[in-house]
Amino acid sequence: MRVIEIKSFGGPEVLKPAERPDPSPGPGEVVVRVMATSVNPVDTKIRRTGRGVAPALPAVLGADVAGIVESVGEGVAGFVPGDEVYGCAGGVRGMSGALAEYLLTDPALLASRPPQLSWREAAALPLVTITAWEGLFDRARVKAGQSVLVFAGTGGVGHIAVQLAKAAGAKVVATASSPDKAELARSLGADAVVDHRASEPADWAAEHTGGKGFDVVFDTVGNANLDRAFAAAALNGQVVSIVTQQAVDLTPMHVKGLSLHVVFMLIPMLHGIGRERHGTILREAASLVAAGKLRPLLDPTRFALEQAADAHRWLESGTAVGKVVIDVGT
Amino acid sequence: MRVIEIKSFGGPEVLKPAERPDPSPGPGEVVVRVMATSVNPVDTKIRRTGRGVAPALPAVLGADVAGIVESVGEGVAGFVPGDEVYGCAGGVRGMSGALAEYLLTDPALLASRPPQLSWREAAALPLVTITAWEGLFDRARVKAGQSVLVFAGTGGVGHIAVQLAKAAGAKVVATASSPDKAELARSLGADAVVDHRASEPADWAAEHTGGKGFDVVFDTVGNANLDRAFAAAALNGQVVSIVTQQAVDLTPMHVKGLSLHVVFMLIPMLHGIGRERHGTILREAASLVAAGKLRPLLDPTRFALEQAADAHRWLESGTAVGKVVIDVGT
Repeated sequence: MRVIEIKSFGGPEVLKPAERPDPSPGPGEVVVRVMATSVNPVDTKIRRTGRGVAPALPAVLGADVAGIVESVGEGVAGFVPGDEVYGCAGGVRGMSGALAEYLLTDPALLASRPPQLSWREAAALPLVTITAWEGLFDRARVKAGQSVLVFAGTGGVGHIAVQLAKAAGAKVVATASSPDKAELARSLGADAVVDHRASEPADWAAEHTGGKGFDVVFDTVGNANLDRAFAAAALNGQVVSIVTQQAVDLTPMHVKGLSLHVVFMLIPMLHGIGRERHGTILREAASLVAAGKLRPLLDPTRFALEQAADAHRWLESGTAVGKVVIDVGT
Repeated sequence: MRVIEIKSFGGPEVLKPAERPDPSPGPGEVVVRVMATSVNPVDTKIRRTGRGVAPALPAVLGADVAGIVESVGEGVAGFVPGDEVYGCAGGVRGMSGALAEYLLTDPALLASRPPQLSWREAAALPLVTITAWEGLFDRARVKAGQSVLVFAGTGGVGHIAVQLAKAAGAKVVATASSPDKAELARSLGADAVVDHRASEPADWAAEHTGGKGFDVVFDTVGNANLDRAFAAAALNGQVVSIVTQQAVDLTPMHVKGLSLHVVFMLIPMLHGIGRERHGTILREAASLVAAGKLRPLLDPTRFALEQAADAHRWLESGTAVGKVVIDVGT
């Protein structure tokens, strides 16, 4: 099969076409014919640094996948060849990735793809949806009527968090850095949008929560932004972050009695625990898609498998709006 | 009435006997005849620094109280004169304290004192019990069968956390720094005790959780100890802390996908929100006392109201084992 392989870590140019034998599923495994994959910041970070969760070299990267079950191993229940699926299911330590014609993976990580979505759209959802879902529901336990602040409301995780919080019945405020992005955040369901460069968390809390602060704050930015997340939170509020951060002063957490939930959605893939939860989340997310409450934002630029390096460059340029997707199958 | 007053912040010597008019309850307030009060680190910190949650001077300190309802204001339901109560109910910004013959307070913060306990014992419980309860149950949601690590298992909050976690059906491991304290922690229900100076969190996780790490870790120590709490926690574990901490590296939280709950139990007193929850916790705690599942550790040294300065000195010496209690009424 055709794959995009890396033999060393570094710039996008390390992503190179190669040939590998077609995989065949062992017991409990499935092989998915990849129709599309999307690029997430974790993919470019692995490619660039080789640290942390990186697979051993030579490696095939790519976590998100939408495709068609090609074959199933012994003992696999729930999927048969021909099933159309989506998931975040490879490209990290111990697992081959989706920059390939076929992906060998654990069916617990997959769910039926929402039929309302194209392959490209389905491939855009899994990593960011599971991240936002775990943060908002499994951890912060957002409830109807609560106020939720989402930083970078049109970003990868942000644009899903806005929609999930709204679907849960929360009042959603998003930060955005331009009028276009503000309009986009509103179209996703944000009740209000604030410009995080023109005003401060205390202003947002005053205007949108009567000064009480937000019940849930979703930090997708990291570093100094966590201070702003703490500043925006209500007493005993829930703060979700998805970014590694150093030298954080927890004094504001003490003063307000906050909870901080750091979400790292790769844990089930890396450690082989809790994978069923990811399949469950994707099934529930598909219901929201069917109900018209969840859709991915796609960057319009198109990339074929052989252009994976360009797709990485495009994501790293910071100018993409919406998920960067690579078309693999036809 | 006799009170112990401070007219300036500083050493224990600022605690001086004085006379004040007897309080009388306004609408929704009660006056409690104080039988005993206990000294918590927050009391000595307020006295020493005057920062943060300190009341305006001149002030009467003292948060924990056990006593007898003397009079009730208009609209108070649930308490009548003569009721025996306990609570954490004063001594911070906006509220007079329990180093006095009478305490004017909000009945939402009180509950009937457990009849199995002496006044001294009842006065030892509220602040530490509410803190441990909020951390373990309201925040970390500890469940039967989970593993819980409690740092400083014979300390003020620690010795309650050990008992509450055990009562919830968890496997409880406590840290202790001497054989005597280890024995004490076991007598409180700890299934195992580790010496935090002789071994490392990874060792405790290996020995007591099969290497998985603890589902819940309760940090009562602060500062560098939070790193050890993170190191001891399981993937997606819950870490509770009660101490302000600066320059914390959250990388371990990211790698493990942890939640950190910073408990600050004074918030309901300071901000006038959620006070009913404190009364509820104290009622539930009283049930545990009745069931023989919760008891306070008391330092045997006795202090009268006029010896409040000595009681503060004793707590600050770090040599007390168990709560330091001051006898007020007779």
